[in-house]
Amino acid sequence: MNDDKLFLLHSDEAARRIRKVVAEMEADGADELLIADNANKYYITGRVFAGWLIVSSAGDVHAYVRRPVHLRGDDVTFVRKPEDIPLHGNSIGLELATLSASDYLRINAMLDGRNVVNASAVMRRARAVKTPFEIEKISESGRRQDEVYRAIPGLYRPGMSDLDLQIEIERALRLGGCLGQFRISGDSMELFMGNILVGDNADNPTPYDFAMGGAGIDPSLPVGANGTVIEPGKSVMVDANGNFTGYMTDMTRTFALGTLPDEAVRAHACSIEICDRLARMGEPGAKASDLYNEAARIASEAGLADYFMGHRQHAGFVGHGVGIEINEAPVLAPRSKDILQKGNVIAIEPKFVIPGVGAVGVENTYVVEDDGMRCLTLTPQEILQL
Amino acid sequence: MNDDKLFLLHSDEAARRIRKVVAEMEADGADELLIADNANKYYITGRVFAGWLIVSSAGDVHAYVRRPVHLRGDDVTFVRKPEDIPLHGNSIGLELATLSASDYLRINAMLDGRNVVNASAVMRRARAVKTPFEIEKISESGRRQDEVYRAIPGLYRPGMSDLDLQIEIERALRLGGCLGQFRISGDSMELFMGNILVGDNADNPTPYDFAMGGAGIDPSLPVGANGTVIEPGKSVMVDANGNFTGYMTDMTRTFALGTLPDEAVRAHACSIEICDRLARMGEPGAKASDLYNEAARIASEAGLADYFMGHRQHAGFVGHGVGIEINEAPVLAPRSKDILQKGNVIAIEPKFVIPGVGAVGVENTYVVEDDGMRCLTLTPQEILQL
Repeated sequence: MNDDKLFLLHSDEAARRIRKVVAEMEADGADELLIADNANKYYITGRVFAGWLIVSSAGDVHAYVRRPVHLRGDDVTFVRKPEDIPLHGNSIGLELATLSASDYLRINAMLDGRNVVNASAVMRRARAVKTPFEIEKISESGRRQDEVYRAIPGLYRPGMSDLDLQIEIERALRLGGCLGQFRISGDSMELFMGNILVGDNADNPTPYDFAMGGAGIDPSLPVGANGTVIEPGKSVMVDANGNFTGYMTDMTRTFALGTLPDEAVRAHACSIEICDRLARMGEPGAKASDLYNEAARIASEAGLADYFMGHRQHAGFVGHGVGIEINEAPVLAPRSKDILQKGNVIAIEPKFVIPGVGAVGVENTYVVEDDGMRCLTLTPQEILQL
Repeated sequence: MNDDKLFLLHSDEAARRIRKVVAEMEADGADELLIADNANKYYITGRVFAGWLIVSSAGDVHAYVRRPVHLRGDDVTFVRKPEDIPLHGNSIGLELATLSASDYLRINAMLDGRNVVNASAVMRRARAVKTPFEIEKISESGRRQDEVYRAIPGLYRPGMSDLDLQIEIERALRLGGCLGQFRISGDSMELFMGNILVGDNADNPTPYDFAMGGAGIDPSLPVGANGTVIEPGKSVMVDANGNFTGYMTDMTRTFALGTLPDEAVRAHACSIEICDRLARMGEPGAKASDLYNEAARIASEAGLADYFMGHRQHAGFVGHGVGIEINEAPVLAPRSKDILQKGNVIAIEPKFVIPGVGAVGVENTYVVEDDGMRCLTLTPQEILQL
């Protein structure tokens, strides 16, 4: 209830992050960033606030705050509108990917012909390489998500639908400290607490850019569980919220009652093989597109290309960066230009949809280290018995 | 799993909505709208999809779709990018409030100097006046939210924290059919499944544009429950997700163990008085600003101005439209230009934060009818015993 300072990060950690941002500003020729996006404000300060953050190429950071009212410090000025913010650079970074057109037009009118640089690209690159502190936050989410996933078989009761099981998983996650919300940049994805897919519902196409689909229970949110009852012979894919620390892990495991048909078992093994292969390939300097192509190649050689990343509808990627948001850089996709760097944190999700059975495969979150990727999602990967 | 048509709405209902959109287009001189926002696509078609919707001033609707792949019909064309969309009007409506700056710049480059109209304003006005079908969807959410709220005392166990109770309420809501997600336009608000505030945590300022605050359990999401244990003398304010149908009700009730201090009881009664007064004032033609001013006047005359809509930090409104999103028109605020119309659905939330006790008051969702507002949130309004 006391007054509060802007930076909730330790000064060393903040300085480390700001150095990375400044390096990316220099690469794009930005003199100053005007940051409005919550995820980017949280990245730089460890705090979400209403207002704007100015980052100069000298690494100075100043907050122009609307709310909360109890922030104090030399680096805090209260303002009502963006026009009250002094701009000094000749080349101003604006977050073109998240700033609304209205706000862009309003701020652009303040710039008096100054050059605009895309601060979204600057911040996306800076955030893609996690600091050791961030990696520890993500690892902590991985440990806590694992504890909940191991408890899932104990939540199952005969006769449950996908939604019944999902509700109990949601509760277990929340009791385990899950924050619930996970941040997604843009509206290409909308989801509540994760995706539980049973049987052929996994083959229902979704409008969203997720690896898997599902019809959902209402047309206002057409993704995920649709009330399918869990039965022997149907796979139960669980891809549930791993945000325990403000930083997420993304982990999927496949469950079943008894044994699944051979082709599903084989596809599941192929998913684990792809993960292992990509984890070995994923050294600093590796091309993200090469990792995607290798995954597609393994799936194809196993005769599973028709089921890889979906069946009626196929997702165009096999992995994605994860951190504060679920859709960070790098992206493992055929036309990705991303090059892996030490400190990237990447979810790899080679999944298959087998008609008549459902979705199988795993998803793991990895950190890129000197000699490949280290897995941060610790639940056993085999098809788990409910 | 079959092919699917674009419109999930009954043709009469779709026609009714499109007529409203066209009327607002005419008011702003738009020949054509290019709709990208999920809430607006859902409004017009009853469906969310990835892609764009063209609405002409003649009321023709055509979808340019990326996903899902199984949409079919004369009104559906699959495209990969906005440049593939033919534009016919001279004055094109773009959703400036939700379109990203990047997308705006890209689409503006396609317009060859055509005039741009703000489609966000057009759609906001059209959506503010609900159809009878929409009002029935909202009423249904109200009935189902009421059932869960009435069960809350049965969820309480001695020693529970705010978060413990919230998790059980979340589960009860989900078992009652709550979709979980609720749509918010913009990132001025982030929240997971609602806000449970116990005792002085209600006085912790939040960065978000909610009526009430709370510190939250992690700085990445600084709002709501913070682990405060529920005890006699502390109020327990429950403002939980009412999205059961794709359309929401917004309802808050205050709970307690035993009797709260007199000033809190008095403030709670004042909140109900304000709701009743505003419901009577809220006829078609009433000024939204007048409703706000009347609420503030009643609070002030009761000597409660310091606690009205917060204590350390005050919210600048007393009500807001609700429907597909939690922050629709009209807004009940001092400088609002909105005029109430028949069919508006408005949440009114005159809340008070009493130091040492916590948040008290109610929130109800109303529909504006010929002779005032009718309440759609049915749980008894008195301070309820846990």
